[in-house]
Amino acid sequence: MADEVVLLDTYVSVFGMRVRFALAEKGIQYEYKEQDLLNKTPLLLQMNPIHKKIPVLIHNGKPICETLIIVQYIDEVWKDKSPLMPSDPYERAHARFWADYIDKKLYDIGRKIWTTKKEDQEAVNKEFIECLKLLEGELGDKPYFGGGSFGFVDMTLIPYYCWFPTYEKFGNFSIEAECPKIVAWAKRCMQKESVSKSLVDPDKVYDFVVMLRQAWDIA
Amino acid sequence: MADEVVLLDTYVSVFGMRVRFALAEKGIQYEYKEQDLLNKTPLLLQMNPIHKKIPVLIHNGKPICETLIIVQYIDEVWKDKSPLMPSDPYERAHARFWADYIDKKLYDIGRKIWTTKKEDQEAVNKEFIECLKLLEGELGDKPYFGGGSFGFVDMTLIPYYCWFPTYEKFGNFSIEAECPKIVAWAKRCMQKESVSKSLVDPDKVYDFVVMLRQAWDIA
Repeated sequence: MADEVVLLDTYVSVFGMRVRFALAEKGIQYEYKEQDLLNKTPLLLQMNPIHKKIPVLIHNGKPICETLIIVQYIDEVWKDKSPLMPSDPYERAHARFWADYIDKKLYDIGRKIWTTKKEDQEAVNKEFIECLKLLEGELGDKPYFGGGSFGFVDMTLIPYYCWFPTYEKFGNFSIEAECPKIVAWAKRCMQKESVSKSLVDPDKVYDFVVMLRQAWDIA
Repeated sequence: MADEVVLLDTYVSVFGMRVRFALAEKGIQYEYKEQDLLNKTPLLLQMNPIHKKIPVLIHNGKPICETLIIVQYIDEVWKDKSPLMPSDPYERAHARFWADYIDKKLYDIGRKIWTTKKEDQEAVNKEFIECLKLLEGELGDKPYFGGGSFGFVDMTLIPYYCWFPTYEKFGNFSIEAECPKIVAWAKRCMQKESVSKSLVDPDKVYDFVVMLRQAWDIA
């Protein structure tokens, strides 16, 4: 039986982009079902009743939820091509640590940039830049977080690159001025076709955020 | 070279207990270094500079942080004895999902029970019980979350059992009355020696919480 793979996703999602990248790297054919997060479908609620969030991978009818769990699942099921996780247990734990750090910190701080009140903007920007600088420290002088080649942490962080212009517009700062090594790293990653093809146009991210701010009545 | 394994931990920690259980299951000898969380040691700050939290496993001088990452590391390095993760990728993703759910929800809600203001106590209790009921639904009629035998999700949840009396005293409710299947499950788990030996005396948890409430000046 051929594998039936369906992805419930939203095109601008930093989480969804990771899954799309993993599927592209493994050369997996799948059906993409765009989800409207302001009007959730019965399928999404049925497949992820606990968190009610995208992305959800449905593999032969069975749902897998939570991005980094999905990516590891893809890596473990389709293990013969393009490994996504390091093979050494210590390097794997190290990669999981930084991917987890990005998940715990960056999304929420980034979201605050375009949802916060004007009086808190400076503090929020500072928190975001500090988080990126910490990641810049972890990158060090390596070309990629994975060392000599693109790896699990790179894959976890790179979707934020197409959100950078939106953060910069609402936060009124320059990420390149603050964290030049992160921007140089991102440009390096974008030379990889499976990365650039999985990322969305930054203008679409901006339009999406403008739409959300209107829907949520943020001035 | 023999493995040098050190655990930085705090005896009442639900996170630390999981690591102690994993080390016990694998039969790994290690040095235990109790940490005072109100007065963090230079060693802890050096080994976990990002989160500054216990537990930290130091294996041959190299630190591994974040509980579920540590447990998976232990399982992957000492892989010949007592597997902690399911061998099937879908079951593994499913186990990771529920372990992640427990990590994201239960600790913070449990902590609110003994830190909240009196007027919010009822709402906090309700949130905690709803979370346990959801887990009870996932357990269903299986003896363990892992099915017929104790597994990764069981290991993630069982340390909370020695915190139950503390939650009950401060929240003024009975977990057994609300979630009898969870309590029956916990009693079943406690028959396993490596579990009961890794868990601490509930009275010590209560004394620890009383001490913290005094230190934090909570009425």
